Amino acid sequence: MPDSPQIDSPQIDSPQIPVRTPVDPVDLTARLIRCETVTPAEGGALSLLQDLLTTAGFTCTRVSRNGIENLFARWGDKGHAKTFGFNGHTDVVPVGDANAWKHAPFSGDIEDGVLWGRGAQDMKSGVAAFAAAAVDFVTDTPPDGAVVLAITGDEEGDAQDGTRALLDWMKDNDEPLSCCIVGEPTCPKTMGEMIKIGRRGSMTAWFAATGVQGHSAYPHLAKNPLPAMARLVDRLAGHELDQGTDHFGASTLAVVQFDTGNTATNVIPARCTAAVNIRFNDLHSGAALDQWLRREAQDVSRMFDIVIETEVKISGESFLTPPGDLSDLVAAAVEAETGLVPALSTTGGTSDARFVKDLCPVVEFGLVGDAMHQTDERVPTVQIDQLKAIYTRILTDYFSQSDDSDDDATA
Amino acid sequence: MPDSPQIDSPQIDSPQIPVRTPVDPVDLTARLIRCETVTPAEGGALSLLQDLLTTAGFTCTRVSRNGIENLFARWGDKGHAKTFGFNGHTDVVPVGDANAWKHAPFSGDIEDGVLWGRGAQDMKSGVAAFAAAAVDFVTDTPPDGAVVLAITGDEEGDAQDGTRALLDWMKDNDEPLSCCIVGEPTCPKTMGEMIKIGRRGSMTAWFAATGVQGHSAYPHLAKNPLPAMARLVDRLAGHELDQGTDHFGASTLAVVQFDTGNTATNVIPARCTAAVNIRFNDLHSGAALDQWLRREAQDVSRMFDIVIETEVKISGESFLTPPGDLSDLVAAAVEAETGLVPALSTTGGTSDARFVKDLCPVVEFGLVGDAMHQTDERVPTVQIDQLKAIYTRILTDYFSQSDDSDDDATA
Repeated sequence: MPDSPQIDSPQIDSPQIPVRTPVDPVDLTARLIRCETVTPAEGGALSLLQDLLTTAGFTCTRVSRNGIENLFARWGDKGHAKTFGFNGHTDVVPVGDANAWKHAPFSGDIEDGVLWGRGAQDMKSGVAAFAAAAVDFVTDTPPDGAVVLAITGDEEGDAQDGTRALLDWMKDNDEPLSCCIVGEPTCPKTMGEMIKIGRRGSMTAWFAATGVQGHSAYPHLAKNPLPAMARLVDRLAGHELDQGTDHFGASTLAVVQFDTGNTATNVIPARCTAAVNIRFNDLHSGAALDQWLRREAQDVSRMFDIVIETEVKISGESFLTPPGDLSDLVAAAVEAETGLVPALSTTGGTSDARFVKDLCPVVEFGLVGDAMHQTDERVPTVQIDQLKAIYTRILTDYFSQSDDSDDDATA
Repeated sequence: MPDSPQIDSPQIDSPQIPVRTPVDPVDLTARLIRCETVTPAEGGALSLLQDLLTTAGFTCTRVSRNGIENLFARWGDKGHAKTFGFNGHTDVVPVGDANAWKHAPFSGDIEDGVLWGRGAQDMKSGVAAFAAAAVDFVTDTPPDGAVVLAITGDEEGDAQDGTRALLDWMKDNDEPLSCCIVGEPTCPKTMGEMIKIGRRGSMTAWFAATGVQGHSAYPHLAKNPLPAMARLVDRLAGHELDQGTDHFGASTLAVVQFDTGNTATNVIPARCTAAVNIRFNDLHSGAALDQWLRREAQDVSRMFDIVIETEVKISGESFLTPPGDLSDLVAAAVEAETGLVPALSTTGGTSDARFVKDLCPVVEFGLVGDAMHQTDERVPTVQIDQLKAIYTRILTDYFSQSDDSDDDATA
């Protein structure tokens, strides 16, 4: 549970007491882990951060939508041309069988330099690291600019009322960002080895084919939707979307469902359904793929004289922040603190960077994510300290740049 | 319920009292309907028939297998070169909602010349008609030959222990047939319009494709069985088995199942299943189709590197008794009694003729079947009388033929 009392006022503009720096990001992570924040529970985590940030002089606003709590915090002038953003989430995935954990999943135990608990990697550590870095930085060397922390309680769920709600609110309230780092775990095995400069888009299409039921002995009296759906699936699965780009692997289409629910063998069913999931690179847009899928369904529909309904949900567009000043800034800080030159990658699933990219250049950098979502999720505390140091160096370097180079970085 | 006491001795060779002819086939049908014989219940129906036939001088044997009751009855010498057979069943399909019937489904009510009840068409009327015809015929004009009635209580069910059990028993006991009529309803709308001289074969194949489960974002780490199954189904559904023969329409293949049971869209399932049902004419055998299906599955399996298991069940081979003396004999009797020249057809599902055809030439002729298996199954009583007259004429004509023409008829 959080050490501080919960503060839930919509906006607190002035610090009550000076914050004590440096903020210990390991202790802050442990305190966040002790907040039970399985999506959509706020669990006291945002209040804990809000208290710390308010004390450090951040203007905090709780952005709530459909029962989801989010936290917007800005230090410095609203609308400043140099407004550096961090994005992350305090919600976590369920713990599964809590008894299977060596340390209770919300214990935040530290043993032999390892911090245990749900969210240790994904991503209370990341939030703690950038919050600690930001508080220290603005307290010790107040910059000419602004620092924004946009922290959500809905990333692991539907993500409709999390970062999206924050961005909607920021748009409505003229709160800009010049550039942003999402603090998700990005390193497969070794701290510092990978920055994400983009992500594939993700979408799902559901097809429902409807014919006319009948006896399998008299197929001419029925209209069988199954051969039509099989043809459609065969066409989609056999189609090469692309061969990849400079920064992305080839887009993929996975057939994930195909069902009739017909248990009889002497009945031709009237209906069947199928679904495909597409992960697409920056050669495609969700809308263009949506059109392609509908065209294919229509073709097959005509060919077999079977009605095929198509429903498409685009979970996220692909995004790419081409290698440039922002990735250079982050890579230089990573190299300075870890000695590694990070790879610029676009692999993996989706993250809230898919939303942030509409507002400003965005890259993702965070911890090693090898135990995230697993039983016994844990993190070496040294990585959290390293991550805070990297974020601090990024802030320092960013605000020490001239306005010119800054413009380049965020163009 | 039957009017007569149940006699269940394995074999009774001599009549106790003379039978009173003519036997009324409508009354006999009504009494059979009053026996509740939903497969596999005997319900007293076979006992009722056994009593009648025994009294008329038939040697009766109850052939039981796996709890299924069947009745073999022969009048005349065992192994006679002219042994005419009738085949039928006394079991019926379930009644569904008994309250939805205008007359209770086992009432056997007769109203305005219509006899009501489950089995009125399929096929207690057919059994009653040939039993009545046979009893009258052997009593009034005893022929130089034998008449066999092979009546089963398992046609509507699995049919593994019905006519098959009777035929196995007949083979083991050297009980031949020269030719046989199956008394199933064969006329679509008008009494006398159709004889069945063959039936398509029927078989079902089940396929199970097994790959490796995985995340839909990383299809290269999974092995998706769905595209393989879609291709297999597409190939099978698109294959023209044949274009029909002189006596059969084209063979058909209906895809009837395709399922994964995967409700997630971010998971590639490890397994899916599909099933096809084939109705095939005399250009194919079940074994050859079985091989073709397995070859197709193996081809696709290799192409997609997905394990595909194939299971095949052949419900019945196709059969054809080419137009000739037997169909001429039946057609002539039908025309003499109804004025119609019956079509020689091979349409419809399966019947026990698929088993009888291994023993001797067989054709099917019976009532109009427009209400069979339905609520309010019923039959005009005049049709039952007509059917008895037709069967009687067939017996008369058959036994009045010289041995030469008889040989031709049953060659």
